[in-house]
Amino acid sequence: MLTAGLALHTDKYQINMMYAHWINGSHRTRAVFEGYFRKLPFGNGYAVFAGLERIVHYIESLRFSDEDIAYLAKQEEKYKPEFLEELRRFRFQGNIHSMKEGALVFPNEPLIRVEGTIFETQLVETALLNFMNFQTLIATKASRIRQVAGGDTLLEFGTRRAQEADAAVWGARAAYLAGFHATSNMLAGEKFGIPTKGTHAHSWVQTFRSEQEAFDIFAEVMPDQVTLLVDTFDTLKSGIPHAIATAKKLEAQGKRMNAIRLDSGDLAYLSIQARKMLDEAGLHYVGIVASNDLDEGTILDLKAQGAKVDTWGVGTQLITAADQPALGGVYKLVEREVDGRMVPTIKISGNPEKVSTPGKKDVYRIISKGSGKAIADYICFPEEEMPPESGKLKLFNPLHPYMRKNVKNFEAVSMLEPIFQNGELVYELPELEEIRSYHDAQLGQFWPEYLRKLNPEIYRVNLSEEVWEVKQRMMAEFMEQHED
Amino acid sequence: MLTAGLALHTDKYQINMMYAHWINGSHRTRAVFEGYFRKLPFGNGYAVFAGLERIVHYIESLRFSDEDIAYLAKQEEKYKPEFLEELRRFRFQGNIHSMKEGALVFPNEPLIRVEGTIFETQLVETALLNFMNFQTLIATKASRIRQVAGGDTLLEFGTRRAQEADAAVWGARAAYLAGFHATSNMLAGEKFGIPTKGTHAHSWVQTFRSEQEAFDIFAEVMPDQVTLLVDTFDTLKSGIPHAIATAKKLEAQGKRMNAIRLDSGDLAYLSIQARKMLDEAGLHYVGIVASNDLDEGTILDLKAQGAKVDTWGVGTQLITAADQPALGGVYKLVEREVDGRMVPTIKISGNPEKVSTPGKKDVYRIISKGSGKAIADYICFPEEEMPPESGKLKLFNPLHPYMRKNVKNFEAVSMLEPIFQNGELVYELPELEEIRSYHDAQLGQFWPEYLRKLNPEIYRVNLSEEVWEVKQRMMAEFMEQHED
Repeated sequence: MLTAGLALHTDKYQINMMYAHWINGSHRTRAVFEGYFRKLPFGNGYAVFAGLERIVHYIESLRFSDEDIAYLAKQEEKYKPEFLEELRRFRFQGNIHSMKEGALVFPNEPLIRVEGTIFETQLVETALLNFMNFQTLIATKASRIRQVAGGDTLLEFGTRRAQEADAAVWGARAAYLAGFHATSNMLAGEKFGIPTKGTHAHSWVQTFRSEQEAFDIFAEVMPDQVTLLVDTFDTLKSGIPHAIATAKKLEAQGKRMNAIRLDSGDLAYLSIQARKMLDEAGLHYVGIVASNDLDEGTILDLKAQGAKVDTWGVGTQLITAADQPALGGVYKLVEREVDGRMVPTIKISGNPEKVSTPGKKDVYRIISKGSGKAIADYICFPEEEMPPESGKLKLFNPLHPYMRKNVKNFEAVSMLEPIFQNGELVYELPELEEIRSYHDAQLGQFWPEYLRKLNPEIYRVNLSEEVWEVKQRMMAEFMEQHED
Repeated sequence: MLTAGLALHTDKYQINMMYAHWINGSHRTRAVFEGYFRKLPFGNGYAVFAGLERIVHYIESLRFSDEDIAYLAKQEEKYKPEFLEELRRFRFQGNIHSMKEGALVFPNEPLIRVEGTIFETQLVETALLNFMNFQTLIATKASRIRQVAGGDTLLEFGTRRAQEADAAVWGARAAYLAGFHATSNMLAGEKFGIPTKGTHAHSWVQTFRSEQEAFDIFAEVMPDQVTLLVDTFDTLKSGIPHAIATAKKLEAQGKRMNAIRLDSGDLAYLSIQARKMLDEAGLHYVGIVASNDLDEGTILDLKAQGAKVDTWGVGTQLITAADQPALGGVYKLVEREVDGRMVPTIKISGNPEKVSTPGKKDVYRIISKGSGKAIADYICFPEEEMPPESGKLKLFNPLHPYMRKNVKNFEAVSMLEPIFQNGELVYELPELEEIRSYHDAQLGQFWPEYLRKLNPEIYRVNLSEEVWEVKQRMMAEFMEQHED
C-alpha cells in the first residue's frame, strides 16, 4: 500500500545507466519510451488496462530520501557525491500519456508513453512496469471471469493466497474496476471504497457445541446479513437442514436470511440439491454462494451443468492469475534526441514480433458511426493529420499489408490521455465507480466475438502508412549496416 | 513494504466472527490455530519456510487507527460502538510459535502456531497466511533453482513482472535467504541489506551512435563493474566483438572487464561461442551472465547442453513462482476452551487428506546421531514426554500404520521457536546472513534424494501414537454422531 518511499523500487541497472549518462554529460538528452505488451494473457481477446492511479501517486511522490542517498553512497559502484546530490534534487519533470483505467487494450499499442530526459524516463521504467503489468493482468482476468458469470454476483476472496499485501489490495481494486462486485479485503475497502463482503469460517462452527447453535447465534448477531457456511460437517445432511432451521427462526422475527455458502464438494450437484431443499422449505429468497478454487473455466462448466449459484467467490485463481501469473509488458525507447532533434529509434530482434515500432505514437480507436462498434485501433505519429471523420481512412495489416480496407463514416477516439505535463499532474483521477462504468462502456463498443473466452476474433491494431514506412525503412537500413 | 497500518489487511469474515463472538460474550474464549500446507509446491521434496520477519513486524504494530475505526463504523453490519471501542484498544496478547526462516518444512506439520483469545487468533489469520504463503513459495522456488545451479551465481531480476511492489521486495528477500546471491531491486537492497547487481539495458546502447561507443563510455564510467549486454543488435557479429574491443581498452588501463550478458537467442549455443571468442581474445577472466525467462528446468537443460554460463539472472519464473503461483497454506482451529479447559477440535472433510489433526502440537526433527541426517519429523502434544535420546522412538506412517520402525541413537530437535509470549516478542530476529547459513545447514541435514528436483523421495512426517489415537477417536466419534 506504500506509495511514498518507492524511489529505490527500481532495478540497479537504471541507477547505473543514470550514473553513466550523468558522467557522460548525456543525462539531459530527451527520450521517449512506450510501455506495451506483445501478447494477450489467457488467450483472451483483449486486456483491461489498470495501474494508472498507482502510477500517478508514485510519480507525484518520487523523491530520494536521505536514507536512500546514504544507501546509494555505500554501493560498490562508488557513485560520485555530485551525482547523489543530483538525485537528492530529483523531481519527475517529464510528460506522461496513458490509457485510462478500464480501457480495453491490445498488443503492440502504447499503453503508457513517457517523455523526458533519459535520466528520468529510465528511472521510472521498473516501477511503471511492475504496477501496469500486475494490475492489468488481474483486471483482465476479472473481466474474463465476468464474461462467463452473466448477471451473477462476483466476490474477490483471494487475500490469503495473494502474492503479498500489495497484490491483495491492488488486485482487489483491479478486480472491482473490471466488474467484480465486492472484495473480502477490508483494507481495499477502506482505501478505495470497494464494497466488502464476508460471512464466517469453519472455525466459527467449530467453536460451538453444535452447528445449529453456531448458526443461530450468528443469525441473532447479524440478522440482516446472514450467510451461513454449510459444509463444516456434511452439507446435505447437516449444514443445509440446520441453515433452514435458522432461516425459519429468522422468519419468525420478520427477517430474511441472505444466503448459504458452499465451499467444497461437487458444487453443481450440491447447489442443485440445496436449491431444491431451500425451495421446498419455502426459502426461495435464500441465495447460494459458491467458492473453492473457481475461475472462468469452472464457473462456465458449473453453469453448463445447471448449478444453482447466484454468487461466486473467486480467490486464488483470480488474485494470482494462476494460469498466467505475469503480463510480459515492456518499456521501449522509441525516440531520442540527436543534435537537438528528436529521431525515431528501433530495437531489432532475431524474433520478428520483438522488433519495436519506432517513433512517438498516438493511438486512436476507430468507431463505426453506423454500428457504434470498434473497427480497429489506429497508431500514428502525433504530427500526422488524422483524416477528417467525413473522410476515408486506409487500414492495413502491418504484417500482411495486402490485407487492407478503407473505412468511412467513423469516429476516431484518442485513447492516450495526458497525465503529467512537465512534471505537473494534468489529469483528474476518476472515482472508481466512474472507472467501472467506463470499462462497461468499453465492453459495449466491441462485438461479442472479440469478448468471448475461447478463440476470440483478433481485433485489428493497425499502423498508419507513415509509421509503417518509417519502420520498414529503419529495418532495411539496419540490415544493410549489419550485413556481412 | 508497509508493515504498520495493516490491521484491516484481513478478510471481512474475520471481523464479522470477532463481532459475533463479542456480542455472544465468547470473544475471550481461548483457541489454538495452526498454519500449515497440505501439498508441496512444484513437485519439490521440501519447502523453505519464510515470512516470519514480516509476521513479527505485523503483529508488533497491529493497531486499529482512527481511520480504520471510522471506516468500520460505516459498514452495513452496523457494528456497535462498544465493539469498535474494543477494537481501538486491541493489542495482540497471545502466543506465537513458528518455524525459523530458512527451515526445510513439510506438508501437514504446523509451521506457525497461534494461541490466544478467539478474538485475536481469528483477526490475524488472513495476513499471516498471505505473508507465509507467498514468501515460503518464493523461497522454495529459489532453493529449487539453486539445487540445479551448482556453484554458479544466481541473481534475482524479477521486479518488473512481480505481482506489485511487496511481492518484488519480499520476494527478493525470500530468494536471497534460500541461496540467491543478489537482487536487482534497490529497495530490497536498502531494506534488507541484500547485495544488488545491475548493468545496463538495450536502451543504453540505443541512445548512442554505435554499440562500440555505448560500451566504451559505460566501461569508462564504471571500469571496475563492467558487464556489457551484447544482444542489442547481433550477439556474435556485433555485441561480443565490440565487448572484446572494450575489454582490451580496459586491459590497457590495467582493468579487467567483469562479464558479458546474453539476454536472447539460444543461450547454450551463444554462451559456448561467446566463451570461445572471449578465450581466443585472451579474456578467460570475463564471465558470462545469462537471462531470459529462466527457471530450474531451463538452467538444468542448458547446463546439460554444455552452456558456458557463470551467472544466471532469473526473473518472472522465480518472482511469480510461475508454475504454481500460490502455496495453499491453511490455518485451522486445533484446540478450543470449553468450560475453562482446552479440548482438541477436528475439521472433518469428505476428502481424507483434508481432515485436520486435532490438538496443539509440537514438531521435532529426528536426526540420526550416526549420519547427522534427518530421519523424520515427529509431531506430538507438548505434554508428551519425548523418549530420552538414548531411548527408542517408534515411528509409523499415519495413513498406513503398519509401516513402522524404531529409531535409536537420535537427536530430537525442536522446530517451533517461541516468538511471542502474552503478546511480548521473545524472539530475536536473526540477521539475513544468519538465515542464509541456517538454510544451508538445513540442506546439509538431508540426504540428496530428498532434495532433487524431479521425483524426490518423500520425507516422513509422523504423528506420535497419542496424537494419532486422538485423531482416530475423534474421527470415529464424528462418524457415529453423523450416521443416518
